[in-house]
Amino acid sequence: MKVLVQTLSYRPNNFLKDIEGVEYVIASTDEEAIRVAADIDATINICSATFIEAAPKLRWIQMLSTGVNGVPFDLLRERGIALTNAGAYGPNMADHTMAFMLMLSRQIPQILRRQAKERWLKKDTPIPDPGELDGQTLLIIGLGGIGLETAKRAAAFGMRIIATRRHVDRPAPDYVHELHPIEALGDLLPRANWINVSVPYTADTADLIGDREFDLMRDGVHMLCLARGGIINTDALLRALDSGKVAGAGLDVTDPEPLPDDHPLWDYPNVIITPHSSGQSEAAHRRLGELVADNAQRFLLRQPLRNIVDLELRY
Amino acid sequence: MKVLVQTLSYRPNNFLKDIEGVEYVIASTDEEAIRVAADIDATINICSATFIEAAPKLRWIQMLSTGVNGVPFDLLRERGIALTNAGAYGPNMADHTMAFMLMLSRQIPQILRRQAKERWLKKDTPIPDPGELDGQTLLIIGLGGIGLETAKRAAAFGMRIIATRRHVDRPAPDYVHELHPIEALGDLLPRANWINVSVPYTADTADLIGDREFDLMRDGVHMLCLARGGIINTDALLRALDSGKVAGAGLDVTDPEPLPDDHPLWDYPNVIITPHSSGQSEAAHRRLGELVADNAQRFLLRQPLRNIVDLELRY
Repeated sequence: MKVLVQTLSYRPNNFLKDIEGVEYVIASTDEEAIRVAADIDATINICSATFIEAAPKLRWIQMLSTGVNGVPFDLLRERGIALTNAGAYGPNMADHTMAFMLMLSRQIPQILRRQAKERWLKKDTPIPDPGELDGQTLLIIGLGGIGLETAKRAAAFGMRIIATRRHVDRPAPDYVHELHPIEALGDLLPRANWINVSVPYTADTADLIGDREFDLMRDGVHMLCLARGGIINTDALLRALDSGKVAGAGLDVTDPEPLPDDHPLWDYPNVIITPHSSGQSEAAHRRLGELVADNAQRFLLRQPLRNIVDLELRY
Repeated sequence: MKVLVQTLSYRPNNFLKDIEGVEYVIASTDEEAIRVAADIDATINICSATFIEAAPKLRWIQMLSTGVNGVPFDLLRERGIALTNAGAYGPNMADHTMAFMLMLSRQIPQILRRQAKERWLKKDTPIPDPGELDGQTLLIIGLGGIGLETAKRAAAFGMRIIATRRHVDRPAPDYVHELHPIEALGDLLPRANWINVSVPYTADTADLIGDREFDLMRDGVHMLCLARGGIINTDALLRALDSGKVAGAGLDVTDPEPLPDDHPLWDYPNVIITPHSSGQSEAAHRRLGELVADNAQRFLLRQPLRNIVDLELRY
């Protein structure tokens, strides 16, 4: 089969090299992709509507991200094209989430900012008293693979883990202390010291967290999001930071993204922003490459693919 | 009994208030302490030799820190005065240690420094690929109460925990995967990706980690110390950072301390320094207050005190 990729310099794509029956075609732009579209059976991370319409033989698209917002779902459904996503980012994104939580709890961003001016902090420097995670409640909204890895880590700090997910009837490991449907969100928000927004970005989850939800939270709550910008409404978050409702936030994704240089979010000492880098890690690239190679072999053998995206639910 | 304290504004001391039979005496300076020394039975955190020599009735000193270097041990032994230390800092110091590890692993200090100049990092910005803790080996040198809390957390990230401690024959929890005597250090240093130096500061442990020990470590090791400055030799650490042997360090203690404004350690983007703040947390103050109150009651009832410091071993 012919697999269209954007580049061979991205390490996960290289895992396809050794698979008998796979032939690479490289297209670094959409125009190049459309030029070679006629023969293509599958693509890695190439999913524009114009390309898909030019590719009559296309049967499978493997995305290299977990979030797949922006894919032309209706067109894929109409054409019967399978869409698979990444699902290899659990350990590194859970590590990144815990980094945010511990930095915020231990007041480290505030300390580092002050050090830029006065180095070793003077005894009377009013840095708020650092905290500890033991005994605090973490709400994970959207318990998927990444959320489960986060829950496992957070529970070892003595946190109570409450979560929402679509299938509340499926069993959960013992470090998830409570599992609820998303409809219970209004009851769960007031209970959490920490809230990790981990749902996929869809029409249903855009602005999931807005003024009304912040109102329900307890004063001094901490917000985390590594999923997609726009699930938390940015203006509502700014208001909740200004009022003191939100004591701190860790964001690997923003809306807009990239966050403009003059955006007010940059100025909060209690907000940590990383540039959508939580998915990166050498081990994640290896896991992703193994998934891509495994799926390619399954495709050749007409076996069920792993990490299939539901084209109705769009995640 | 009369208990001498430096201040009542420090929260843990307040836990003594409700104990029948305890009378507070406040002395904010050593001169004041010596003036009232004749009647004092016990002190909180007051331990100068000049005071002790002026206090004939003194029988117990409760320190509010875990490390007790600087106490006149010989004088206490000669006089038969009991010394107890804090031992209330496990959860918050373990959190602080994990904050250092995750920040270093996820390249967050480097990202924050760059953001000060260019905000959202450009795609071609050469930040090294962030890592993950899963599968890495953590060596804890000196497995005490803080080290055990750290081990519990680190194991949930998929780390392998190897440790040294004085009593290797006593049982350890299953998240400590190997336990060795300190004599095995030379064999353990080459195996670790992360090294947490957690021994008390004594004549035996000053400069425990110097050029010879750094030579034994693997390239790219990460160093952590929240115990006391001077256990890691600062000049040797600077050499190991310059050579690339040490890929990053998280230090809550330094030598000298406070670290002078013009000290070279401030300039490394891969070194995180916090101002001896890992011991702080509201919950730790509560635990410490409960310990102080419990020990005061034990002292009144002539029961064995908790957290007794061995005056020979000096920790």
